[in-house]
Amino acid sequence: MTVTSEMKPESVTLHPLGTASAPVPELLCIFGTGDLGRSLGLRLLQSGYRVVYGSRRPDSCGPLPQGAQVMSHAAAAQSAGLIFICVHREHYDFLQNLAPHLQGKVLVDLSNNLKKGVYPEANAAYLQRLVPGAAVVKGLNTLSAWALQNGLLAGKQVYLCGNSAEAKQAVAEMATKLGVTVLDKGSLSAARELEDFPLRLFPEWRLPLSVAFGLIAFFFFYLLIRDVIYAYVEQGKDVSFRIMVSLANKVFPIVSLIMLSLCYLPGSIAGFLQLYRGTKYRRFPDWLDRWMLCRKQMGLVALGLAFLHAIYTFIIPIRYNVRHKLISTVVDEIKKNKTTPFDFDNTEAWGTDSFFALGILGFFLYVLLGLTSLPSVGGTLSWREFTFIQSKLGHLTLFICTAHGYLYGWNKFLRVSTYKWYTPPGFMLCLIVPSVVLVLKALLLLPCVDRTLTRIRQGWERTQSKEELGINKATNF
Amino acid sequence: MTVTSEMKPESVTLHPLGTASAPVPELLCIFGTGDLGRSLGLRLLQSGYRVVYGSRRPDSCGPLPQGAQVMSHAAAAQSAGLIFICVHREHYDFLQNLAPHLQGKVLVDLSNNLKKGVYPEANAAYLQRLVPGAAVVKGLNTLSAWALQNGLLAGKQVYLCGNSAEAKQAVAEMATKLGVTVLDKGSLSAARELEDFPLRLFPEWRLPLSVAFGLIAFFFFYLLIRDVIYAYVEQGKDVSFRIMVSLANKVFPIVSLIMLSLCYLPGSIAGFLQLYRGTKYRRFPDWLDRWMLCRKQMGLVALGLAFLHAIYTFIIPIRYNVRHKLISTVVDEIKKNKTTPFDFDNTEAWGTDSFFALGILGFFLYVLLGLTSLPSVGGTLSWREFTFIQSKLGHLTLFICTAHGYLYGWNKFLRVSTYKWYTPPGFMLCLIVPSVVLVLKALLLLPCVDRTLTRIRQGWERTQSKEELGINKATNF
Amino acid sequence: MTVTSEMKPESVTLHPLGTASAPVPELLCIFGTGDLGRSLGLRLLQSGYRVVYGSRRPDSCGPLPQGAQVMSHAAAAQSAGLIFICVHREHYDFLQNLAPHLQGKVLVDLSNNLKKGVYPEANAAYLQRLVPGAAVVKGLNTLSAWALQNGLLAGKQVYLCGNSAEAKQAVAEMATKLGVTVLDKGSLSAARELEDFPLRLFPEWRLPLSVAFGLIAFFFFYLLIRDVIYAYVEQGKDVSFRIMVSLANKVFPIVSLIMLSLCYLPGSIAGFLQLYRGTKYRRFPDWLDRWMLCRKQMGLVALGLAFLHAIYTFIIPIRYNVRHKLISTVVDEIKKNKTTPFDFDNTEAWGTDSFFALGILGFFLYVLLGLTSLPSVGGTLSWREFTFIQSKLGHLTLFICTAHGYLYGWNKFLRVSTYKWYTPPGFMLCLIVPSVVLVLKALLLLPCVDRTLTRIRQGWERTQSKEELGINKATNF
Repeated sequence: MTVTSEMKPESVTLHPLGTASAPVPELLCIFGTGDLGRSLGLRLLQSGYRVVYGSRRPDSCGPLPQGAQVMSHAAAAQSAGLIFICVHREHYDFLQNLAPHLQGKVLVDLSNNLKKGVYPEANAAYLQRLVPGAAVVKGLNTLSAWALQNGLLAGKQVYLCGNSAEAKQAVAEMATKLGVTVLDKGSLSAARELEDFPLRLFPEWRLPLSVAFGLIAFFFFYLLIRDVIYAYVEQGKDVSFRIMVSLANKVFPIVSLIMLSLCYLPGSIAGFLQLYRGTKYRRFPDWLDRWMLCRKQMGLVALGLAFLHAIYTFIIPIRYNVRHKLISTVVDEIKKNKTTPFDFDNTEAWGTDSFFALGILGFFLYVLLGLTSLPSVGGTLSWREFTFIQSKLGHLTLFICTAHGYLYGWNKFLRVSTYKWYTPPGFMLCLIVPSVVLVLKALLLLPCVDRTLTRIRQGWERTQSKEELGINKATNF
Repeated sequence: MTVTSEMKPESVTLHPLGTASAPVPELLCIFGTGDLGRSLGLRLLQSGYRVVYGSRRPDSCGPLPQGAQVMSHAAAAQSAGLIFICVHREHYDFLQNLAPHLQGKVLVDLSNNLKKGVYPEANAAYLQRLVPGAAVVKGLNTLSAWALQNGLLAGKQVYLCGNSAEAKQAVAEMATKLGVTVLDKGSLSAARELEDFPLRLFPEWRLPLSVAFGLIAFFFFYLLIRDVIYAYVEQGKDVSFRIMVSLANKVFPIVSLIMLSLCYLPGSIAGFLQLYRGTKYRRFPDWLDRWMLCRKQMGLVALGLAFLHAIYTFIIPIRYNVRHKLISTVVDEIKKNKTTPFDFDNTEAWGTDSFFALGILGFFLYVLLGLTSLPSVGGTLSWREFTFIQSKLGHLTLFICTAHGYLYGWNKFLRVSTYKWYTPPGFMLCLIVPSVVLVLKALLLLPCVDRTLTRIRQGWERTQSKEELGINKATNF
Repeated sequence: MTVTSEMKPESVTLHPLGTASAPVPELLCIFGTGDLGRSLGLRLLQSGYRVVYGSRRPDSCGPLPQGAQVMSHAAAAQSAGLIFICVHREHYDFLQNLAPHLQGKVLVDLSNNLKKGVYPEANAAYLQRLVPGAAVVKGLNTLSAWALQNGLLAGKQVYLCGNSAEAKQAVAEMATKLGVTVLDKGSLSAARELEDFPLRLFPEWRLPLSVAFGLIAFFFFYLLIRDVIYAYVEQGKDVSFRIMVSLANKVFPIVSLIMLSLCYLPGSIAGFLQLYRGTKYRRFPDWLDRWMLCRKQMGLVALGLAFLHAIYTFIIPIRYNVRHKLISTVVDEIKKNKTTPFDFDNTEAWGTDSFFALGILGFFLYVLLGLTSLPSVGGTLSWREFTFIQSKLGHLTLFICTAHGYLYGWNKFLRVSTYKWYTPPGFMLCLIVPSVVLVLKALLLLPCVDRTLTRIRQGWERTQSKEELGINKATNF
């Protein structure tokens, strides 16, 4: 055979099929035949492994995935090097008796708790204490039986920790074959952190939601006093029905606009801080870091409130009191026979229409921003596209929404009747923060400021001595 | 050289570049130079393989990816161990003549059919019959030429099946290098199933859509009789124009609310079944399993109908007949000079505004639920977050939407005129299922019931004998 | 021990833990301790590598990930075979002095520029020129420090290029372990292309947005003349306030419908071209290819405009001029005491309600189409499902929206007053393209045409000679 180096038969060319040389796939052991155990076994079989279940009742443990074996715990443990513990922590004690059989094995602890802080030590640490001769690896506990069964692993990320690098390596290789990406979180002392992952309840949403609820409560009571109580006290009118729609439709846009501006405020503060310090290499204060980390959530809360504002606005004309007012206006009109207000006011038409157009455009951009924050959409954007949308488009949205707010009050700013009980109306209060943010951003966009900031962000430092400058240049980025 | 073990030069340190020791990348063969063949070749080259095409006309087979070779089928087959068959099944017969050259090779059958059930046997089984000496692996057929060309493979899942474990292993390794996750579906008898994957047409949507269309048809005719035909027969009025908007805007919310409650009903039924049986280890009846599996789709259909309801509501005031009614009310009013109805009814204002506010809030939560069912959003949620949203937030949505329904009929329940031809109005019928679901859920939330159910779901069994309990404890989860 | 071949202890069974045989993880070197360097180091440590930083000031380079070492550049370079260059291009010159230490090493250039075309050669080419003895690999530069830090790599795709296949192989293996999929883009001459990736700014959106803006500008001025200037010139009325809402709400739906039909036009053109040519193996003209590639973006622009149209429509009844018109109609009515227009016109009611219903349904389908174009939703669809939605549902949407347009003008087509200054109204112009697309599609759906086209798309060629037909059959697909 005269095969050139380029054409030589490759290693995958099979040996004559069916001969003994075929590699036997690795055998893995699973303790526990519940939902998770069964789903994991199915998935391992599908990824090309052989699977043996360890069970106290090998003869009556219900339906298991086709192709898997069942044995006693001891026999199963002996046959494989890697054992998945798919058993509730409360039942770990049986493993103590098995300890001799588990000597030198890798035990993967997949367990989760129902609540945080029920036990003094992590499940995996407890397991390691029960079976000191084995190498316990905590991990994969964020995979649900549901995801395993339905093959929803591709592209997921799982965490591992353990004291034996070798054991972690073995588990990582197996996990990679399952299609998940592995992140090593260090020694077994990180087990508690891993066990708390599935019990997280929107930690990054806490701050934004607290701020939003605080602002909603404040503006609700502020406007309740100005709109409802004022009318009752001063004019003796009961307009309490306004609480459900009119008041809500004032509170939501106000808080939405403030939340949106709070999204962009920390970026400007960070810019000024860097300018003041003349370097980007000093850490931001903790409060600023935390604020920066929840900007996305703040923006999404703002979008939610803007969405509510939009719907509240759409149903205005079908409300009882709006229709009642319309009809009684006409009837009054006719009876008194005055025609003055029926003169068409062109300025009023331009003003209200511009107000609506800005609101619609602002909402449209709001929704665009929200869409790009979807993981699957944001993931397809290049760095420059992401920056463009989140910074340029974001500030444009803020500008348009702020203009929408100013236009709402266009002829009310100088009217005395606006300031009931000497308080400014809600929309005036709400325009303060956005205006400040826009002014700060405008300052940062001034060519001279922008140039300095760009240089700082590229690693330049103002206070460097000459030598340092030469030396340090190489380690930024 | 005194390099410590920690610091020793690593294996990736290159041999002097350009020497002969560099490993030659594996050579793969592709039969077929159509779209799929070309895209696959490009992708393989990009993943670091060498590629050779087998063609009957090696000299005139059109543009191929740069770096690929072209040969006759026989020569190409001989040069590689793994051959991709990117040819339509109808043209497989030429492979029979090539059989001697394909002896011991791995043939990957990527073919798909245009329709189900055209051929008596799967394409891959037919191929195996034509070339018995080769190891046929069916798979990767869910990857489109489009996805291959545009590098949209990362994180995708593909299926394999075949009779040779060794051949499957070789293909799986290649596929992993392409960035996809491989799931082994067993022997070649699964080929038909794999070939049907790309021909699926929303199988999991069938049941929810059938239920939705059934309910829509029922309520449409029910309301047609009550609203249009009744008016024609009893009052002689032709209000048939109502079909397009008014009727639709009654049918959609009614069916939406029922579908939403049907989403949460099976969960409650399952809970009661587990309580009754005292164990979670017995399978649910088939109908319940199927119902549970299409809850997500039911919810999305409900969301779609709620979306239609919302838009139908928004355009109410611009409809011709609404404006006509408004104008003629006023004109009648003036002419008859009665002012009674113009007294402002505070209760009415509160009632309608609360009705709208609940509807808006319900729709908002509906949309939230829908967003978290997006794969890329749901994938980022922890187990507890997912449970919180789908169970707590879901039931809250159902509660608010049901309250919205009750408020709609608040003063109509006891009015005789409501029951035209002795039939209850549509919204009353639609409130039955949601009310039942909410009551069932409330019962399951009673502390004593909840405690027992939680224990059962953690693996406790009521009917266990003492010994079994000790033994069995270890195998739940 | 009598272990059968099936049960033999597997290779992952650990050596007695803690013995010296444990493999030492590979050591990688990072030059640069900025954001990117630190994030990359953290990620490498989490993926099981050891990391050493090269720094000019090893003693004062700020906080580095736990577990990483810091050394001088030379020492760090010597200790590892793979070196990541996380330094701005402007500071590369220090590497020239290090060249002796970098001999035979793999240098991964992760650098990006702030703008396109600042430097005459790619950063990686410049690096290779500075250190000719090293194997430079350009790549991973699309990964941001943010993504690295937050573990958002799973399922991402990165690009590599370089002149040494061996070096690329080493980097590819490392990248695979990080959870990303690697695509080889060839030799180092592709570096410029890779460096331009993060600087892309929506290249595939350029054409659709240009077309949309062109159409918007045209229709804006066309309607400005017909609606505003005509009224001013002929009737002396100033209706300029209409620009903000009325005009926008005509331009957006018109352009939306045209964009939607432009989405489906190239598919029909391609079909007719294939029918005319009698083969699918000849390339489409360039303009058609480019058009086909931006269909998704065209559709999304159309959806955005339809969304704006919907909102503009919802706020119609709360506009000042609409309410003013309503009130003055009634008042005029009463005063003149004519009751004619208050007769209810059943045809008008049917017409407008059908118009609205079609609009709502069209918008609903529009949104559905948009949802399936989300990467995470579209990725879960089978080939047939995708085809069904994008072709069948797409054409249905187009049909319904076109019908919505025809219904808008139902009784205006034959009215002379419609043709102000002898120009047709905007909606008539906008109906031309959709009507043509629908007719073309209808022709393609004729059984005889459809059958021929399906055969062509399966690889059949009309002009084949008999022999060729036999030979060529095997290379379609």
